[in-house]
Amino acid sequence: MTTHQIDVLGIGNAIVDVLSRSDDAFLDANELAKGAMTLIDEAQAENLYTKMGQAIEISGGSAANTIAGIASFGAKGAFIGKVRDDQLGKIFTHDIRSIGVEFITRAAVGGAPTARCLILVTPDGERTMNTYLGASQNLSADDIDADQVASAHTLYLEGYLWDPAQAKKAFLKAAKYAHNASRQVALTLSDAFCVDRYRHEFLNLLVDDVDILFANEAEITSLFQVSDFEDAVKLAAEKCKLAVLTRSEKGCVIVKGSERHDVCAVKIDQVIDTTGAGDLFAAGFLYGFSKNKSLLECGHLGAVAAHEIISHMGARPEISLVDLVKLQGL
Amino acid sequence: MTTHQIDVLGIGNAIVDVLSRSDDAFLDANELAKGAMTLIDEAQAENLYTKMGQAIEISGGSAANTIAGIASFGAKGAFIGKVRDDQLGKIFTHDIRSIGVEFITRAAVGGAPTARCLILVTPDGERTMNTYLGASQNLSADDIDADQVASAHTLYLEGYLWDPAQAKKAFLKAAKYAHNASRQVALTLSDAFCVDRYRHEFLNLLVDDVDILFANEAEITSLFQVSDFEDAVKLAAEKCKLAVLTRSEKGCVIVKGSERHDVCAVKIDQVIDTTGAGDLFAAGFLYGFSKNKSLLECGHLGAVAAHEIISHMGARPEISLVDLVKLQGL
Repeated sequence: MTTHQIDVLGIGNAIVDVLSRSDDAFLDANELAKGAMTLIDEAQAENLYTKMGQAIEISGGSAANTIAGIASFGAKGAFIGKVRDDQLGKIFTHDIRSIGVEFITRAAVGGAPTARCLILVTPDGERTMNTYLGASQNLSADDIDADQVASAHTLYLEGYLWDPAQAKKAFLKAAKYAHNASRQVALTLSDAFCVDRYRHEFLNLLVDDVDILFANEAEITSLFQVSDFEDAVKLAAEKCKLAVLTRSEKGCVIVKGSERHDVCAVKIDQVIDTTGAGDLFAAGFLYGFSKNKSLLECGHLGAVAAHEIISHMGARPEISLVDLVKLQGL
Repeated sequence: MTTHQIDVLGIGNAIVDVLSRSDDAFLDANELAKGAMTLIDEAQAENLYTKMGQAIEISGGSAANTIAGIASFGAKGAFIGKVRDDQLGKIFTHDIRSIGVEFITRAAVGGAPTARCLILVTPDGERTMNTYLGASQNLSADDIDADQVASAHTLYLEGYLWDPAQAKKAFLKAAKYAHNASRQVALTLSDAFCVDRYRHEFLNLLVDDVDILFANEAEITSLFQVSDFEDAVKLAAEKCKLAVLTRSEKGCVIVKGSERHDVCAVKIDQVIDTTGAGDLFAAGFLYGFSKNKSLLECGHLGAVAAHEIISHMGARPEISLVDLVKLQGL
């Protein structure tokens, strides 16, 4: 592999999170599927927002959070995603650039507003997400630059990109450019309902397009339509070049052919908000991967980053991850 | 005094806070006066924002924070302030209404965007504020409704209103309506530099227009141009009908003629962010005052609310203040 300027290039929906504390009764009353990501239209977003309590706004988006994590580890990240030229778009752009991430996708002029995700955080720390995709739906193959993709060690794609029709084409174009340049392509399945919507397409991607698959327990069992996690691990070992399977407080399992590593989660006293846990796990793993660490080390770096993110509200690191791992002697 | 529908009606600049962790070196490099509120124009705001790290957005505004505190105590608050009909204006409007505050001021259509305050929070928890007043400058006497003012037990005004020229007229009109209806008028001096800008006007207000004065140590000593706090207390006893003088971790002094009460601050292990400390102290005090509690109890309620707000980022309560005081048996 030739040298690279970017460690990880992420492509995903560019979203500002609107986080509000809530309770289970509110989820029930509004028929919200706890723990899931549900797509909503603009009218539904307005309606839910009116009912929600006071909120805080923090930049989000699954792959964008991962790339923010990469930057927090002191590595070079880049992000491709579409905002509008509105106030929320400026907030998203400012936040990701302020931490040193390369973000050059042109903002949409006119059309739907910048995407937002209305997130209800229940007292158990679980987040329930309701996404209005807005301008992020307009990401297209034209937003992919062959040279930028070729300059990145790993291309990281979120499964959520399968929802906006144009974004899928951007995804496939980028994956092709990456492999043409002998780069790695990683995919996260994003959400069990998302897997359910696109199971066959995701399974097809595993054949040639994806080198590293990230999934949690619900997603991987949904993908392979099995009920037992260990059955899913076996299938992942067969179907994936490398699979990283996360299980919240049970840690993660990394499988690569016959090779298997079990990594423990970092213990936490109180989970404040799980928003971004999977995204930051991927950040830690991919940071290690881009630095040629062992798979076990990559898994542990993921666990450390996930631990940081669930200890506060929001899906972007509050403290420097590079300082955190130094403190831990990693 | 006749019955009232609103416990406290606040008038102030309607602002969204943009909070970012920073260090003293950043303040020095950008010549920012630590702990102060500095007014900046749109170009300065753009420039500082570009240099700031990633941020979170939370509704703010001094009097608006106080009214949010009133609502959190389970009392009835109302707020008058001007946003634009942009995304930040919608956020401000949503947040304050979502907690049950009456907020009916018409948003500006066109013109300057919704006000924002760029806040740098240093590791000691101190906040340094840089405010672009934007649309909040367009608050005018036309936005004051005589019936609404007459229906409020206490009218609460922030000294910052002296900066936008039109808002001053709104302030004086509201104070007149309040006194015509035999209501109480409270003023907070807001900031020592603000006092410096308008000392004579504030001193004149104390003669007839203001019944309750809130100030911290720097503000009250600046107002009376004395160096010793106890000298300021004596002058406050002479010049004010009722003065509530806060001193951060040293607690507060309440003076009403020859009557004086010293109230301790609530001990805190670690100050995270002092943004809103004075605003929430005023909320606790005015909540008690509107419920005819003793001055000592009012001071203690202020201390409890201030303690809550400095334990996290942002100037709006994260937990219900009514639950908090119940827990403490107040």
